[in-house]
Amino acid sequence: MTDLQQEIDQEITWLSSIGLDDKQGTTRLLYDNHWVAAQNGLKEKFEQEGLETSFDAVGNLSGKLVGSNYPNEVVLTGSHVDTVVNGGALDGQFGIIASFIAIKHLKEKYGQPLRSLEVIAMAEEEGSRFPFAFWGSKNIFGLVDPEEVKDSVDSEGIVFAQAMEDAGFDFPEKKQPVRDDIHAFVEIHIEQGNVLENTGKQVAVVDSIVGQKRYDITLKGQANHAGTTPMSYRKDTVYAMSKMISEGIDDAKKEGDPLVLTFGHVAVKPNTVNVVPGEAFFTMDCRHTDGGALDKFTSNLVKRFKEIAKECDVEIEIDNWMDEEPVPMSKEIVSVLQEACAEANLNYTTMHSGAGHDSQIFAQHVPTAMLFVPSINGVSHNPDESTKLEDLTEGVKALIASLYKLAYQE
Amino acid sequence: MTDLQQEIDQEITWLSSIGLDDKQGTTRLLYDNHWVAAQNGLKEKFEQEGLETSFDAVGNLSGKLVGSNYPNEVVLTGSHVDTVVNGGALDGQFGIIASFIAIKHLKEKYGQPLRSLEVIAMAEEEGSRFPFAFWGSKNIFGLVDPEEVKDSVDSEGIVFAQAMEDAGFDFPEKKQPVRDDIHAFVEIHIEQGNVLENTGKQVAVVDSIVGQKRYDITLKGQANHAGTTPMSYRKDTVYAMSKMISEGIDDAKKEGDPLVLTFGHVAVKPNTVNVVPGEAFFTMDCRHTDGGALDKFTSNLVKRFKEIAKECDVEIEIDNWMDEEPVPMSKEIVSVLQEACAEANLNYTTMHSGAGHDSQIFAQHVPTAMLFVPSINGVSHNPDESTKLEDLTEGVKALIASLYKLAYQE
Repeated sequence: MTDLQQEIDQEITWLSSIGLDDKQGTTRLLYDNHWVAAQNGLKEKFEQEGLETSFDAVGNLSGKLVGSNYPNEVVLTGSHVDTVVNGGALDGQFGIIASFIAIKHLKEKYGQPLRSLEVIAMAEEEGSRFPFAFWGSKNIFGLVDPEEVKDSVDSEGIVFAQAMEDAGFDFPEKKQPVRDDIHAFVEIHIEQGNVLENTGKQVAVVDSIVGQKRYDITLKGQANHAGTTPMSYRKDTVYAMSKMISEGIDDAKKEGDPLVLTFGHVAVKPNTVNVVPGEAFFTMDCRHTDGGALDKFTSNLVKRFKEIAKECDVEIEIDNWMDEEPVPMSKEIVSVLQEACAEANLNYTTMHSGAGHDSQIFAQHVPTAMLFVPSINGVSHNPDESTKLEDLTEGVKALIASLYKLAYQE
Repeated sequence: MTDLQQEIDQEITWLSSIGLDDKQGTTRLLYDNHWVAAQNGLKEKFEQEGLETSFDAVGNLSGKLVGSNYPNEVVLTGSHVDTVVNGGALDGQFGIIASFIAIKHLKEKYGQPLRSLEVIAMAEEEGSRFPFAFWGSKNIFGLVDPEEVKDSVDSEGIVFAQAMEDAGFDFPEKKQPVRDDIHAFVEIHIEQGNVLENTGKQVAVVDSIVGQKRYDITLKGQANHAGTTPMSYRKDTVYAMSKMISEGIDDAKKEGDPLVLTFGHVAVKPNTVNVVPGEAFFTMDCRHTDGGALDKFTSNLVKRFKEIAKECDVEIEIDNWMDEEPVPMSKEIVSVLQEACAEANLNYTTMHSGAGHDSQIFAQHVPTAMLFVPSINGVSHNPDESTKLEDLTEGVKALIASLYKLAYQE
């Protein structure tokens, strides 16, 4: 094991031990005791390496190495410190550890940068404790009205404002001021998919984050006796649903990458072996890097669903409850990351992200790009979440090379 | 309202009031207090009309009008006294009321029959309290080893044998003797479907009961992130299930009546909007009056399911846990019932039954046929279960005419 591998391994083991749960995973939710312990532990670690630390008003932790020539131009790097319930050891926190190690190595090798280098351990991204995601990154750009979350309640009945105060932060009375000192943001994260694994690459430069549309679809027909109702008298919602799903997936396969289409949740009523289901509910999740292509595909599909409902003599209700535009990464920063990977002779590729990340908030305000490392079997949000140590290390090398270009070069 | 209509209406209202539950339905389960009250109430009613009453060992109640010439040839008529949980006012008990009224009217008009006429209120058909159906009729033909049910437990933890003793019956130590005095059995029942309603008929002679096959089908693929997993890397069980269901129903429609195919129960894992479902479970219920056609259709479909599973790269397990042969009714008794309906100028048809009934047990041992009356909207097993009083009355007339032929004619 190289020194760098050992360092990465140790730091991840240390950080994921804070919030270790009884199901072999890590559960560290916004403002809970483990969250407080992790942020304080990171603060201490940052300070030991001579970084200037500070918490912002909502608990985003920074460790800063001030630049010589452009101290107010910050090259920011990091990810989120919170996990999902029973999460793995990498989602979010690998980005913090990698950023910290990268800055430490750059400082040791090259001393003070031209621009300030700052690692950030963001307060929250997952939305796992309260029904609100991107609390950390959104507050950096003044995007949250505190009233939106103030009265949110977690699964134990604790109110958001109280949880925040218990963690030592005053609940803000108004939107945060927008940070205006960020020159660039680079986030490294696990892929949470199996593209890198399947293509044999160790690192990816991420050039965009997909747009997402989510739908609830409800079909109403008639619950009938499975034996006494001839086929021609039925209003069978499971039949209609099955036609919609199988046609939808066939169309998505024809459309091809980067479009993905998922029918993840299915519920049927009365859900009994000998009754024709009078009601069916299912969700549809569709993603694409091109907003126009996403709109066109989904609107065609919705039109077809209505036709199928008519053919099957069932009523259909379609609720499009999520509609997020794709977010392209900064072309300039993507180029810098690609060059850095090439110059470091890394086994890399360029791809889009099919999942959401803090970077999609940043990219709408400051020059941003991401790096990915592979996820074994594409698994994440699960204690089985894992990446080969060699691949994590190649990711850290890519980040070091990228931050060098951004902070040490004019 | 005619006298006969009034009589039917009163008796049904009386009997369904025994076990009236708090959801506008009737809940009268094997050997519970309401069941005991109903059987004792019927016994008293039968005796008031001069019928000889008796309970057999398991609680089937008989009211007999002894025949003059052939007292040991019994023309038996009736149905089951138990209901489903929150059942309607007709399923089962209409058959008892109709049979009782028919015998009463025949006795009043024609006096003593040549053959004995017997109304039977059978103990149990639905399997709603304990996981065992046809307890009443199966015991008439010595088909139950008491050991099979002895330790069954109801939803409140009461053991079968105890429930039986609480109702005043000793739990039998061995199989019942076979009743050998039955000349014919005629059961009148609601259709529980919408064929009579849709074809504008008031009565049906039932010439067969469908065979049924039921399957549990489990698909195992891979749970993957809905955003980060390209379509070509997926093992999507909901897609595979949807192809199976939509193809299956399309094939069933092509096959045509009397085949029916139902996918009534569906369950998906992890069942989350943003995860490709790694597991899907669904049931298949297929029925046909022709056993060979049923076997051929289902074995073709099962073969096709395995092909689809292969195409979709998912594993499939198929458990065929129910396989009941179709039961033809007695041609002779069907003819008698058809003639009786025709001679009485009733608006009748001949059809099969898509649901199971006590008659399917009888028909394998003694000459048996059924009569149906329409079900409004095909609804049953539900407080909304209903039939127009005029149609119930036509059904009783059909039964009177049929029993006359069977018991008063040589």
